[in-house]
Amino acid sequence: MRQTQLFTKTRKEAPADEMAKNAQLLIRAGYVHKEMAGAYDLLPLGFRVVDNIKKIIREEMNALGGQEFIMTGIQSKDVWTSTDRWSDDIVDIWFKSELHAGGQVGFGWSHEEPITEMIKNHISSFRDLPIYVYQFQTKLRNELRAKSGLMRGREFVMKDMYSYSTDAEQHEKFYQKTIDAYKKVFDRLGVGEDTFVTFAAGGAFTEFSHEFQTICEAGEDIIYINREKNIAINEEVLNEKTLKDLNISREELEQVKTAEVGNIFNFGTEKCEKMGLYFKNEKGETIPVHLGSYGIGITRMIGVIAEKFSDEKGLVWPESVAPFQIHVLVLGEDEIVIAQAEKLYGQLTKRNIEVLFDDRKGVSPGEKFSDADLLGIPYRVVVSAKTVQQESVEIKKRTSADSELVSYDEFIARFTV
Amino acid sequence: MRQTQLFTKTRKEAPADEMAKNAQLLIRAGYVHKEMAGAYDLLPLGFRVVDNIKKIIREEMNALGGQEFIMTGIQSKDVWTSTDRWSDDIVDIWFKSELHAGGQVGFGWSHEEPITEMIKNHISSFRDLPIYVYQFQTKLRNELRAKSGLMRGREFVMKDMYSYSTDAEQHEKFYQKTIDAYKKVFDRLGVGEDTFVTFAAGGAFTEFSHEFQTICEAGEDIIYINREKNIAINEEVLNEKTLKDLNISREELEQVKTAEVGNIFNFGTEKCEKMGLYFKNEKGETIPVHLGSYGIGITRMIGVIAEKFSDEKGLVWPESVAPFQIHVLVLGEDEIVIAQAEKLYGQLTKRNIEVLFDDRKGVSPGEKFSDADLLGIPYRVVVSAKTVQQESVEIKKRTSADSELVSYDEFIARFTV
Repeated sequence: MRQTQLFTKTRKEAPADEMAKNAQLLIRAGYVHKEMAGAYDLLPLGFRVVDNIKKIIREEMNALGGQEFIMTGIQSKDVWTSTDRWSDDIVDIWFKSELHAGGQVGFGWSHEEPITEMIKNHISSFRDLPIYVYQFQTKLRNELRAKSGLMRGREFVMKDMYSYSTDAEQHEKFYQKTIDAYKKVFDRLGVGEDTFVTFAAGGAFTEFSHEFQTICEAGEDIIYINREKNIAINEEVLNEKTLKDLNISREELEQVKTAEVGNIFNFGTEKCEKMGLYFKNEKGETIPVHLGSYGIGITRMIGVIAEKFSDEKGLVWPESVAPFQIHVLVLGEDEIVIAQAEKLYGQLTKRNIEVLFDDRKGVSPGEKFSDADLLGIPYRVVVSAKTVQQESVEIKKRTSADSELVSYDEFIARFTV
Repeated sequence: MRQTQLFTKTRKEAPADEMAKNAQLLIRAGYVHKEMAGAYDLLPLGFRVVDNIKKIIREEMNALGGQEFIMTGIQSKDVWTSTDRWSDDIVDIWFKSELHAGGQVGFGWSHEEPITEMIKNHISSFRDLPIYVYQFQTKLRNELRAKSGLMRGREFVMKDMYSYSTDAEQHEKFYQKTIDAYKKVFDRLGVGEDTFVTFAAGGAFTEFSHEFQTICEAGEDIIYINREKNIAINEEVLNEKTLKDLNISREELEQVKTAEVGNIFNFGTEKCEKMGLYFKNEKGETIPVHLGSYGIGITRMIGVIAEKFSDEKGLVWPESVAPFQIHVLVLGEDEIVIAQAEKLYGQLTKRNIEVLFDDRKGVSPGEKFSDADLLGIPYRVVVSAKTVQQESVEIKKRTSADSELVSYDEFIARFTV
């Protein structure tokens, strides 16, 4: 894409009311626009990053046998009363509104109940199970405070998956497979090493749930980890019993600040019993379905990556999620130089290599360099009078201080898959 | 995809409260689930159809130079007060809710104001224009009545595009290009011949806007058309002046029922003046931006296609939007027959041909045939003892009564791109 056609501009300053580093950087670089605290538009660059994150997650969820669909955002009261979660006393983050036609609607902060209600139409026998469904859904939560930029939203995108299984064994097998799939997801997103499968508070059915927590100074959670033993415990369940269960002592654990990027939860048969989701097993007995839920915060993920992969100059995207792989900068307005840059840009796009081409005129090299650093595209490629003279381009990785001069052919070859 | 893995089941009856044919068929075939009147979940098959519609539109919008992004659904009061459209007296379809942190939020029934507000940060000079942005957005509208299934939603997906131009000429050029692009879209969606660019009520700035109206018995609009002269007029502007302007008489026009599948609107400079979106032109003068908006109803499109392309047996998808191209049915439980069907299924999926494989056991041929008709996938391919004996498959188009016997190799070759 040509930068002259990208409508967003970079800014020197973020809005004064924006306190979170991730949102400051993302706004300054033109990835997002702040509608209000906790609600950010995804501008073309931000949209591309989210799309890349979704693609990775979609691949891994499909590999698990997940079926993608999408529920509505508006939800009816009836579906939530069976589990007592319509009440504002029990769920304090509902957005609700009156229907002109009479009655109330809620705006989906979660979809466990509506999905389970819908699934009732499609399950009657053990032959219909297991079922794995997932969606990328915009969730709305009436948060009292939303000060962490894209890391805690009043509106945010979540991947939520649900498993419906015949029994504890079938459930457990998928639960473990999902843990592995999530690990792959976070590896591919570039945060694998700093992301821990963390013991957290369970529900009525299980002692623990599992959170995926990524070390991040701006995170809102505190967990205790032991890297060697690969154990992580959310502070909410750090007690004598947990330590004993996990066979570890308090002294072996290190306290870290983290952001919860995913969680998986075993409902057992509790929710399906409450909602009346039963099936006939092989013996003809009518028994309740086992439910599991599996979330990943998509827009939060952008926030976490922006916090973790950035420096004083700007963003530093991992290649897997970067909006473009290459940022070609043409310096000066010498016709021969511009023609060479155009030629390379054409060759790259023809090969479906994702490239942003800074073809702006009347913009100084210094300004182009600082914009490139702010945007954080993995490879910066300079075409200037100097490089053209040597029939080369100057390549610099965003993560490195050094650049190298590379011939045109080698440059194209290096990025051709 | 294997039908044994698809979680949705077909149904003999739609819910009793569902009056619209499109929703009845889509629910019975398992494409959607009704959350409430005017709000339908997109189950895996429906999700695939919407995804196909989006892909076609995305290609055409990108070809126009459109940049995809996505705004938030929650919107702040301030943005809408400048144009007086926050008021429920003026806009009677708002969903609104109280923020726990104080103040109100609205849920996006339109995005003209928030996008224009956001764009202010990125436009200052004529060099920044024109800009074309679009999104696929879930809109929420508090409709008093929602009885037309997927054709009028309280929640629905819309593609909305906005053009920001320096002057009337630049605006007009893009407006005309968009009309052509929309024609291509509706052609590709299979409704081109029955879709008319229709003169409709304009605004403060122009006498007419243009609607794209598709002939559809269940539609809520009435327009007057002359196919030969390619003229269509919404009844709301059918008067002496319009007839004279368009040089046509009442007698030459035929009345038809239609559904509005798209609309394009010229705001002139009115909205940007109200909202303070100005730029410096080449002479250094500060003048307001010209705004155009361009919508296509995505989920409504599914409803219209389901109404138009269906018969007493079920849905009849055009190939461009069908959830799968081929529906392979294996009949009987003879091992050799099943093995042959599996082999063909493997060959098709290896070639990335989208195929649904009815591998269900204990389901009669009659039931498989009637499910195939209900699902409406373009090509039904039967593998049975009879076809295996002849080393062939039986292919039947959903739109045709006749089937033909085709050898395995020819079958695979015919669908290989």
